[in-house]
Amino acid sequence: MRRVAVIGVGVTKFGRHERTAAELFAEAAADALADAELPASAVQALYYGNVVGGETEKQLHTGPQAASVLGIPTVPTTRFETACASSHAAFRHAVMEVAAGVSDVILVGGAERVLNVPTEESTEYFAYASDATWEQSLGLTFPGVFALIARAHMTKYGTTEEQMAAVAVKNHRHGALNPKAQFQREITLEQVLRSPLVADPLKLYDCCPFSDGGAAVVLASEEVARKRPRAVWTLASAAASDSMLLHDKRDLSRVAATERAAAAAYRQAGRGPQEVDVVELHDCFTIAEIVATEGLGLFEPGAGGLAAEKGWTSLGGKIPVNPSGGLKAKGHPIGATGAAQVGEIVTQLRGEAGARQVDGARVGLVHTLGGNTATVLVSLFGRD
Amino acid sequence: MRRVAVIGVGVTKFGRHERTAAELFAEAAADALADAELPASAVQALYYGNVVGGETEKQLHTGPQAASVLGIPTVPTTRFETACASSHAAFRHAVMEVAAGVSDVILVGGAERVLNVPTEESTEYFAYASDATWEQSLGLTFPGVFALIARAHMTKYGTTEEQMAAVAVKNHRHGALNPKAQFQREITLEQVLRSPLVADPLKLYDCCPFSDGGAAVVLASEEVARKRPRAVWTLASAAASDSMLLHDKRDLSRVAATERAAAAAYRQAGRGPQEVDVVELHDCFTIAEIVATEGLGLFEPGAGGLAAEKGWTSLGGKIPVNPSGGLKAKGHPIGATGAAQVGEIVTQLRGEAGARQVDGARVGLVHTLGGNTATVLVSLFGRD
Repeated sequence: MRRVAVIGVGVTKFGRHERTAAELFAEAAADALADAELPASAVQALYYGNVVGGETEKQLHTGPQAASVLGIPTVPTTRFETACASSHAAFRHAVMEVAAGVSDVILVGGAERVLNVPTEESTEYFAYASDATWEQSLGLTFPGVFALIARAHMTKYGTTEEQMAAVAVKNHRHGALNPKAQFQREITLEQVLRSPLVADPLKLYDCCPFSDGGAAVVLASEEVARKRPRAVWTLASAAASDSMLLHDKRDLSRVAATERAAAAAYRQAGRGPQEVDVVELHDCFTIAEIVATEGLGLFEPGAGGLAAEKGWTSLGGKIPVNPSGGLKAKGHPIGATGAAQVGEIVTQLRGEAGARQVDGARVGLVHTLGGNTATVLVSLFGRD
Repeated sequence: MRRVAVIGVGVTKFGRHERTAAELFAEAAADALADAELPASAVQALYYGNVVGGETEKQLHTGPQAASVLGIPTVPTTRFETACASSHAAFRHAVMEVAAGVSDVILVGGAERVLNVPTEESTEYFAYASDATWEQSLGLTFPGVFALIARAHMTKYGTTEEQMAAVAVKNHRHGALNPKAQFQREITLEQVLRSPLVADPLKLYDCCPFSDGGAAVVLASEEVARKRPRAVWTLASAAASDSMLLHDKRDLSRVAATERAAAAAYRQAGRGPQEVDVVELHDCFTIAEIVATEGLGLFEPGAGGLAAEKGWTSLGGKIPVNPSGGLKAKGHPIGATGAAQVGEIVTQLRGEAGARQVDGARVGLVHTLGGNTATVLVSLFGRD
């Protein structure tokens, strides 16, 4: 199969917008195409991630809508939905189309609009990613899911609320360096620990926000990418699924799908976690970052909390995690998140991340999680 | 790229069910796997189409849910949504994964549940596939969209209400031969013409029904398929998109995306419309079948109405269209439709379609349309 490069990235500011998801995507896509120095007419396919468009905008069939708003209505387009991992799933399938030789230039991205509805509504819509019959009906929403995961991790490994809070403090510190982040201000450990309880033991500052936003990347075949000086190569892109139902999982302190997707990605790339220089991972809640750093093999099971506390995952630490600010501070417009994470890693590997640059980063990893840990995507990227 | 075969098909009866979409899919998938003589453990990926799960079942992230209900929760899975063409889009992307050599056995399918909500609700949810800002807000629903198309075709070509009614009569006659069809009874031209007006000039019997149902097919690489006597080969699978907005289209009497997807599919397959022996196409309304037979090159522009009237598209005619009964009589559980159409063509090419068999069929075509004609998929199949 052919090598696949990312040659352009674009992302809107995350936060509150008075525009449709398709319009947010179009802004990001135009930036990505300009970055790739390609006209929109060069795009041969659009892979689009969007999750709750039906619920918040009464809009399905969002792929052709996004293409129409961008001005490329005749480009074949598909919408992908794997909950919060949607545009990372779109990315992986697009990599296969380029690798297979079907297309040379593909636009991948996603967008979401949720701040146009009240929080109680968006919380309900997000819960549609868990099982309607067995979980939603019992009132389980995502803060509840991750509170159960946090309790399991605390019980098994002694992980503390302070260690979870350290993740929030670190990601806000990083987010303060990112002009596109929803929250560009630092917070203290005290602020996190004293913030209102959402789902015991998770407090308000353990949770990522609801966000509107769009993100896009341009994929290209080696032939197209070779003509560009700043191409970043996709070394691997792997997906794993796991039981939809939380009560079917063997061990809530681990995310089996992360472990399987990471193993597959490392195998594809012929690299191991010790070779990764920078990571963007799915910190929808602080405990999610701790569990992910373990599942990706960056730290031993149970050591993720300590790693956060000791600053090993901070900019300047052993393995910087979420230099963008992560979902926690950068924001989490769910359909855009995977593409935005890919965009951040590409920016880092190009050495263009400014104040949040990880020095000398040559290999980067993106991890995105969907639903009750039922979908995980892991991709690896590198410079020549 | 490697050749890709369909080695198993399964479909539920279409109509009213008291089961979730995931459960309907699981029935079809189990049948498809049994037909392929493969255990569920052989499946390496699930490609799943579902459209209004968020609206009718409060269920998003339906890919992992379907995999869990089927008992293969760790198989990587993605949900595809391109309105009524969703599981045909899933099929096309799955073909690329097998062709690229990433997987050898993929389960593709889809399901939908809509009869659990009142008709006025399902009509609204289906309209989410058209543009929220410019079309839904004006009250445009799908019968309205296709009524406009019908008027344009009548004005340009002199197509008559009797010709449209002939499509309904023919598809009901075919459906009466299909034990899985929602409507297994014949109707007369008089009944169609005297049925209540839905959106002038379309009457009740010009419209396909709302349906619950599931469908699945098993895709395999040549190496796997060669060990099976009844493999049917994918000769081509192409997608085309078009403007989301009806008012942006140049000519409502034609479906530009059908013409582009068909041209691409014929080119891929190295075949022309005159070599096609049997067709399953998207007859969501009778006028849609007439326009599709023209767009696919089976008849000249403007001759589709005459072809229906003359019986050229009937079983035993020049080119049998929708021997299954089509969406009109077989039913239209939107997420399942594309996979069910593929299943019918595979069954026809195997010579296993019983009373509705097209004699000597060796090349078959599947056409599926999404939304306001904004998405079209066309695939071609053949026997060795």
